[in-house]
Amino acid sequence: MIDRITIIGPGLLGASLAIAIKRHHLSRKVRFWGRNLQKLSHCLQQDWCDEIDPEISRAVQESDLIVLCTPVNHICRTLASIAPHLSKDSIVTDVGSTKAKICNFADSLGLASQFIGSHPMAGSDKSGYQNACPNLYEDRSCILTPTSKSSDKNLEFIKNFWTSIGMRLGIFTPETHDKVVASVSHLPHLVSTAICHEMNDSVEKDWLPFSGQGLWDTTRIAGGDPKMWQDIIDQNRPEILKKIQAFKHHFSKLEDIIVHKDEEAAFLFLQQGQIFRKTLEASLDSKKNGG
Amino acid sequence: MIDRITIIGPGLLGASLAIAIKRHHLSRKVRFWGRNLQKLSHCLQQDWCDEIDPEISRAVQESDLIVLCTPVNHICRTLASIAPHLSKDSIVTDVGSTKAKICNFADSLGLASQFIGSHPMAGSDKSGYQNACPNLYEDRSCILTPTSKSSDKNLEFIKNFWTSIGMRLGIFTPETHDKVVASVSHLPHLVSTAICHEMNDSVEKDWLPFSGQGLWDTTRIAGGDPKMWQDIIDQNRPEILKKIQAFKHHFSKLEDIIVHKDEEAAFLFLQQGQIFRKTLEASLDSKKNGG
Repeated sequence: MIDRITIIGPGLLGASLAIAIKRHHLSRKVRFWGRNLQKLSHCLQQDWCDEIDPEISRAVQESDLIVLCTPVNHICRTLASIAPHLSKDSIVTDVGSTKAKICNFADSLGLASQFIGSHPMAGSDKSGYQNACPNLYEDRSCILTPTSKSSDKNLEFIKNFWTSIGMRLGIFTPETHDKVVASVSHLPHLVSTAICHEMNDSVEKDWLPFSGQGLWDTTRIAGGDPKMWQDIIDQNRPEILKKIQAFKHHFSKLEDIIVHKDEEAAFLFLQQGQIFRKTLEASLDSKKNGG
Repeated sequence: MIDRITIIGPGLLGASLAIAIKRHHLSRKVRFWGRNLQKLSHCLQQDWCDEIDPEISRAVQESDLIVLCTPVNHICRTLASIAPHLSKDSIVTDVGSTKAKICNFADSLGLASQFIGSHPMAGSDKSGYQNACPNLYEDRSCILTPTSKSSDKNLEFIKNFWTSIGMRLGIFTPETHDKVVASVSHLPHLVSTAICHEMNDSVEKDWLPFSGQGLWDTTRIAGGDPKMWQDIIDQNRPEILKKIQAFKHHFSKLEDIIVHKDEEAAFLFLQQGQIFRKTLEASLDSKKNGG
């Protein structure tokens, strides 16, 4: 057990993390910092928060681990404001859903050895510490993005930290991380949102109760917080634009096939999509079985 | 209770329908016709099948109701082959997921009064009578597409039939039906398939276990039977092509916003998508509550 963890940002992710830390006895003290003093005072009344400090320079002192749980586009400026006050022994990580900008920025601040980027793939439709959930991180994936400058000892520490609260780890470079989440997460979100726009234009409201599971599933993620997604787009713009191009290429190919009534090509295109889906299902099955 | 229902096509939908008919005591006899004699003989060994007839002209005789449960692009030719043998009192319906072509064709055969198109929104990833499911139709939506030539009495009969096995009804013209399913079902399927193609090109297999719920949900329908979807595209091509154009328009608008780093427009676009999703959720909640 370590002495103190400071969590920057008392939202859903921060508060859920504090609960998990307490439950698994990972730290004697959990300290919170947040911009909103009233919210911070409320946190102090919860059993997952031992200390608060409204002064960020003090909040990070005497902490073994600092976890940045602010919105993704505040992480860099928060890193800048804590950097001068960090002890050399403190380890810093974050929960941001993009990684290259953040890790490069940490490097530019001279934190390359201390900072190891994390992207725990956990979340909820709800937000705020009031919705904190004890098992938000349990049995979910977490990508770590150490660089060549990261200290091995610190990486080991961060690996242990996330696995202790029940996460499955993957390790990739920050750049690979951003490229892949642009495919597996950001592109599906944008596509889902564009489907909603098409429906909004063309489907009378009295028809919605007759839509099936397909529309339900493909539009679920479009219900996500627009501000959060605006930030993600801002953080990962070049990779997202590449994925948009790639998607448009495939979608136009399908359109051509349909225009030209090419039955065989239509079957093959649909079949290839089905094969990918089966591969995805198999890979997630093997994950569930510990593979 | 009526005397006899003939089901054309002993697949998942036909066999599940037979089970529901038996369970709700809707008909004294359930008769099956199918192209494959061996499959038909197997059906006769099930308690949901009383009679089989490998000769379609005989299979439809002395039946109060004939339900066409063949793949959607076989329905017109099946209608043509049964038309000369139908008694004037028999009522005919189908389970096809497109409606305009089928209803127009029934009209051209002189069946406008007897034939009432149905689209029960029920299905499964599995197929074949071996996977028949007693509650496949229960608590699901069914769209009926009568025309001005449909007999009121027959429409009442068909309405009672589907509600008796637990379905919620909607009534629309065949053309409106096809326009709306192009939006709420066919477009999401094609988009989901194109996402799979993009992933297949760009994502290493070792990354798949780290993909989240978003990819899982948006690609689920791409796992559907490619042959069935090839047929649906074929049956509803003009409406599907319109929806593809509309989707491309919205997606390109989003791309422009991202290229031009227009933060405010990005937020508004994402927010509008979220609002549509909330509307969809509310409409399905009200459906569950009988609204």
